Amino acid sequence: MPYEAPDYYAIEELLTEEERLVRDTARRFVEEEFQPHIVEAYRNGTFPMQLVPRLAELGFFGPTLPEAYGCAGASSVAYGLISQELERGDSGLRSFASVQSSLVMYPIFAFGSEAQKSNWLPRMARGQAIGCFGLTEPDFGSNPAGMRTTAKRAKGGFVLDGVKRWITNGNVADVAIVWARLEDKVHGFLVETDRPGFKAEQMHGKLSLRASVTSELYFDKCWIPEENRLPGTGSMKAPLACLSQARYGISWGAIGAASACYDCALRYAQGRVMFSRPIAGYQLVQRKLVEMIVEITKAQLLSLRLGRLKDAGKVRPEQISLAKMNNVAKALEIARLARDILGGNGIMDEYPIMRHMMNLETVNTYEGTEDVHRLIIGKDITGFDAFGS
Amino acid sequence: MPYEAPDYYAIEELLTEEERLVRDTARRFVEEEFQPHIVEAYRNGTFPMQLVPRLAELGFFGPTLPEAYGCAGASSVAYGLISQELERGDSGLRSFASVQSSLVMYPIFAFGSEAQKSNWLPRMARGQAIGCFGLTEPDFGSNPAGMRTTAKRAKGGFVLDGVKRWITNGNVADVAIVWARLEDKVHGFLVETDRPGFKAEQMHGKLSLRASVTSELYFDKCWIPEENRLPGTGSMKAPLACLSQARYGISWGAIGAASACYDCALRYAQGRVMFSRPIAGYQLVQRKLVEMIVEITKAQLLSLRLGRLKDAGKVRPEQISLAKMNNVAKALEIARLARDILGGNGIMDEYPIMRHMMNLETVNTYEGTEDVHRLIIGKDITGFDAFGS
Amino acid sequence: MPYEAPDYYAIEELLTEEERLVRDTARRFVEEEFQPHIVEAYRNGTFPMQLVPRLAELGFFGPTLPEAYGCAGASSVAYGLISQELERGDSGLRSFASVQSSLVMYPIFAFGSEAQKSNWLPRMARGQAIGCFGLTEPDFGSNPAGMRTTAKRAKGGFVLDGVKRWITNGNVADVAIVWARLEDKVHGFLVETDRPGFKAEQMHGKLSLRASVTSELYFDKCWIPEENRLPGTGSMKAPLACLSQARYGISWGAIGAASACYDCALRYAQGRVMFSRPIAGYQLVQRKLVEMIVEITKAQLLSLRLGRLKDAGKVRPEQISLAKMNNVAKALEIARLARDILGGNGIMDEYPIMRHMMNLETVNTYEGTEDVHRLIIGKDITGFDAFGS
Amino acid sequence: MPYEAPDYYAIEELLTEEERLVRDTARRFVEEEFQPHIVEAYRNGTFPMQLVPRLAELGFFGPTLPEAYGCAGASSVAYGLISQELERGDSGLRSFASVQSSLVMYPIFAFGSEAQKSNWLPRMARGQAIGCFGLTEPDFGSNPAGMRTTAKRAKGGFVLDGVKRWITNGNVADVAIVWARLEDKVHGFLVETDRPGFKAEQMHGKLSLRASVTSELYFDKCWIPEENRLPGTGSMKAPLACLSQARYGISWGAIGAASACYDCALRYAQGRVMFSRPIAGYQLVQRKLVEMIVEITKAQLLSLRLGRLKDAGKVRPEQISLAKMNNVAKALEIARLARDILGGNGIMDEYPIMRHMMNLETVNTYEGTEDVHRLIIGKDITGFDAFGS
Repeated sequence: MPYEAPDYYAIEELLTEEERLVRDTARRFVEEEFQPHIVEAYRNGTFPMQLVPRLAELGFFGPTLPEAYGCAGASSVAYGLISQELERGDSGLRSFASVQSSLVMYPIFAFGSEAQKSNWLPRMARGQAIGCFGLTEPDFGSNPAGMRTTAKRAKGGFVLDGVKRWITNGNVADVAIVWARLEDKVHGFLVETDRPGFKAEQMHGKLSLRASVTSELYFDKCWIPEENRLPGTGSMKAPLACLSQARYGISWGAIGAASACYDCALRYAQGRVMFSRPIAGYQLVQRKLVEMIVEITKAQLLSLRLGRLKDAGKVRPEQISLAKMNNVAKALEIARLARDILGGNGIMDEYPIMRHMMNLETVNTYEGTEDVHRLIIGKDITGFDAFGS
Repeated sequence: MPYEAPDYYAIEELLTEEERLVRDTARRFVEEEFQPHIVEAYRNGTFPMQLVPRLAELGFFGPTLPEAYGCAGASSVAYGLISQELERGDSGLRSFASVQSSLVMYPIFAFGSEAQKSNWLPRMARGQAIGCFGLTEPDFGSNPAGMRTTAKRAKGGFVLDGVKRWITNGNVADVAIVWARLEDKVHGFLVETDRPGFKAEQMHGKLSLRASVTSELYFDKCWIPEENRLPGTGSMKAPLACLSQARYGISWGAIGAASACYDCALRYAQGRVMFSRPIAGYQLVQRKLVEMIVEITKAQLLSLRLGRLKDAGKVRPEQISLAKMNNVAKALEIARLARDILGGNGIMDEYPIMRHMMNLETVNTYEGTEDVHRLIIGKDITGFDAFGS
Repeated sequence: MPYEAPDYYAIEELLTEEERLVRDTARRFVEEEFQPHIVEAYRNGTFPMQLVPRLAELGFFGPTLPEAYGCAGASSVAYGLISQELERGDSGLRSFASVQSSLVMYPIFAFGSEAQKSNWLPRMARGQAIGCFGLTEPDFGSNPAGMRTTAKRAKGGFVLDGVKRWITNGNVADVAIVWARLEDKVHGFLVETDRPGFKAEQMHGKLSLRASVTSELYFDKCWIPEENRLPGTGSMKAPLACLSQARYGISWGAIGAASACYDCALRYAQGRVMFSRPIAGYQLVQRKLVEMIVEITKAQLLSLRLGRLKDAGKVRPEQISLAKMNNVAKALEIARLARDILGGNGIMDEYPIMRHMMNLETVNTYEGTEDVHRLIIGKDITGFDAFGS
Repeated sequence: MPYEAPDYYAIEELLTEEERLVRDTARRFVEEEFQPHIVEAYRNGTFPMQLVPRLAELGFFGPTLPEAYGCAGASSVAYGLISQELERGDSGLRSFASVQSSLVMYPIFAFGSEAQKSNWLPRMARGQAIGCFGLTEPDFGSNPAGMRTTAKRAKGGFVLDGVKRWITNGNVADVAIVWARLEDKVHGFLVETDRPGFKAEQMHGKLSLRASVTSELYFDKCWIPEENRLPGTGSMKAPLACLSQARYGISWGAIGAASACYDCALRYAQGRVMFSRPIAGYQLVQRKLVEMIVEITKAQLLSLRLGRLKDAGKVRPEQISLAKMNNVAKALEIARLARDILGGNGIMDEYPIMRHMMNLETVNTYEGTEDVHRLIIGKDITGFDAFGS
């Protein structure tokens, strides 16, 4: 039987049988097949690519997309639960699946032509093609509107020029969804990574999310044919819709990372004896553990409600911002409290906590920093835009 | 149409028609009939007793108890929503109803004889009898086990001796549920307040919950007949069950107080101009408002889930502790943030915020302080008792 | 011997003999002569005016001004220590002295004519004339630049029109320093409060700083003679210089309020038994007490360093902002922690804590809110003005 | 001229000429000689041993010890300033010097025989011998009283058995100060690392303080001669005195790490443009920067006062606990805020911030965790010991 995660408010019973099944499958995969590799992968700064076929086989790529394209047609809640379980393993693992599912397969499905869908989605679902998402640029992280990459019409297609940065999976991708200005509108393009003029360079020196490949993409007069444009794109709405998908998954993923830290710290505190008693019996330690379980419980309720709204087609991007912002920020706090409970041992990579803590610094920043989401919600509730102020 | 309260995650749609109705009724009552009195009542340190018949008429006393006793037979969620709306008005108003419903009518219903139920519950539901709950003592607030009040068998009944402190409604009650040691077991007794040997003295000098009557009860050889003992009592389990009922309602009430502060601060910020723009457009102000809405949303989800568990007969006291602790502590933070947004105006009683802030200091303390609930949950998750340490 | 206040870093030895003397004098006065009146004054919303002659006699009005004007010629550190001790009693007491010293006597001394100085300063030092400071207006609290009150030249003097709000001592003052626009420059004027066209109305409904008189001042074609203008004024620099004086004193005062809360909570925790041990021996209580002493110690070091810089003529207003912002915000946190330690008793006015907590809400707001000081320092360190943004 | 560090309260002028000189020397060394190596050293998990001769030459080993032993005879404040500047580079650099100075040279000086002093101190001052400090054990981090390592008398000396963990410099040391139970008293022993029965194993998998060598020491019937015992030891007082020395230096070091983060974040914010303005001009960013400078300023005042007390021979260990606890905890918060300001770039090791943030997790834990110091101070102020509770 797979491991029991914290569920203080019996949220288990609010899930469907199918949702529990997919969650348990993901949990078992992470425990049995992913955990044995993570310490080494993290030290080396690599993603364990050998697991891709298994991730595909288990249906974790594009799980909410229709079965017609080889996907699972699962609910958004099921997708959230997969994200949660993968990030219980490592944020890098969840990031790999998020990019493939929410940032590549989703836009192909939502904005692509039928030919694009038929060509890419089944292969991606099977893990035979890996994608990446080229939106952010060196000078424009949380403000995609400042984009400088351009597409120009040229001989039956387009020529792309520019640089993209912070691109997860950039160096392992077969295709990149690239966002570029074409006649002052932002369009999405499918760029096979073996095209001339395309170059990916892995970024080194990361102290976070090390079990994930992060790259810079360079486009130097990179030509792509007309049919590589995603026909449904043409404004910032399309990439923002992708970000909403990804943020939704992140809100669940953070619960997984937080739970892993909580569980580890709880077990450690129950076993670690100081002054002849387990430290779990000390008030200052209980205070930390209680803070963790309270915030995990609230995050669980947020994401579940969000998922139900999403499945009902009623979710607003600002609601997603709230869960992404809250759940990641709280997961980061939880990781810090957990690390503290472990004392000196908390800095060793044989325990997962400090790794999660370091990862969550990235997760708190990407797909909209904490402050960006704060101002998105602030604008929503007050009616005033405070971004430029 | 009554006023619209914050509902960022569309929780409205998770309520039944009946639950919405009872909530709207309570909300309208508070706005139209309670608000006009609160500033004066708070200044004077009194409860507006003239509203008792209306509270009864609207079904706010013992709303979850059976119709057979003149009550509404409503769901726990409906009861929670009533608490929420009453505390949107003032914590003192919700306290009045909480005591009557959760701490007096509930134990009579749960631990009383059929004669006790028939005698008291219908009158209490109609507001013709008011009750109070005598558990805490001068030296034992959050540790009821230290109780010193005694009952001794005497001529067909019992003689009570001792002092109770912090008793809401003590001076306006017709009957007190009094907890006392009888042969070293804790029993509950119904004490009519006109009995010889009973005296209630109102506590003066409160800087919080001023629109609520708080008293000391003195029992000096106070005789009561045999039939005044609640037959279902005889251990700490009974009063603790009462506290769980009350804490459940408080967890909802805190949402009401927090929402009132949020709404007031939001409207104020939208209207207050500084440096030629409404302050709602400034980042530092949005930060506060966003913090508020995030915590209100999470508190709403906690209490709703708790209520559904309660209605399903599955709730555990520790789960109630979590919501009571979290929701009140967050309401207090929200009130402080709101007061800050109002600047100098935030200290004036024409705005409800500082009053709520002061009230919540009491609410955070009574029925188990924040730290007591922390250690209750801490024991639950770790298996170690840290109270005495 | 007067009471021993917290001094964890032996700051006592850094004071001169004279500074210690003046501090001890103030401390003894507060304990012996002020404390017996404060509960009643606070309940009634009045300032104990009968103490004014004693405050004067002890040299607490304008203590840093020259002896030539009947003042004590003390150091800024001595002035700070007086503020600290007075606010240990009540923020309202310190406010009374601050207004008289920093906001009335200081501008007369710094910007007044010799005639104005000779006329007012000795009388004020003796407490025979009380002053108030009319700067803030109903719509302009933390942004004095938005001032609407006007002065117009008329028959040998000026006519003032406008409204001032949040004016400490407005209803008990003999003279008001009023700031008004004259030909688009801001000048200061001495307005005797018995002049036609002047009216002061006490503000009621305050839930903070109740032992202090707060007023609205109305100027309706109020004529004053030419010689009532403070000749050294003519821009915002003059009132801002006054604010700096007051903020400096507040930074010290907050230490006094915080210390009073700390001392009360410590003694309470040492005496209050729960589960058979004093609560001072519990980790969660020690955590709060330690947080308090740490922040008190840091605030003491900040104010002392600030005072030495001030006495050396080297202090910058932004340095004062830092101490005002920090010390009051931390005092407020300390008061809240202290209130929590006292449990239910913490809301009773027989203990000073909740009163200090309520007062500090005002102190955190007036003379520049916490956010205003944050942005003053932010501008200073970054070089960018973020006020209007 | 060396780089200008934050000094908001003009603390510079409170230093002696000599103190400024030593500080500037250390600062220049770090900038010019250490910084070029740190990124590589951190990635590789090594300490740049090639810098040891320069550290010695500059007088950074045992700087407060007498010139008679080849040391500098500097003030405690000067020693603090060296620690501050070294940790501005990296906590691992400061740790190296702290161990050598406070944990090895200090106990030899304070508890050693004249022969031990003459033999070791001059060589250590010259960097020709490196020491380590063997106190903590696998199961006893913050509770050294639980020590299991034993010394037994044997053939003209002692035989040591046991394991020490978390030993900085263990694998690069020439000599270890080892604490062991001898007939139930704790004594200190000098153990040359080439003795049979001694083994040091470097700990791998650290995600913090990577530019520092951390080891486990194994003693397996390790014989040392009689004269290797430190004659002044024989109770826990001696190792605790060493810890006080080290903690004192750490309190200063944390200021250096915090300042490095602040400076980097400030410059970054001034240069990083978002929505056409540098982010240093946004309120949410200024809020973070102001929080940093406030806490840095307070930490500076704490450590300086502490140093002056130490130089006057008046310091108490509990006062040191306060500065160690506060300054490191605040440095950690500052590092987190700084990382956040840098957004995605904040996770790259080309910026020093995340490295400092990771390091400070260790610094917050070693030489007494934050909670341990909390309870040390708690006991001091309340008179009640809450460690075992």
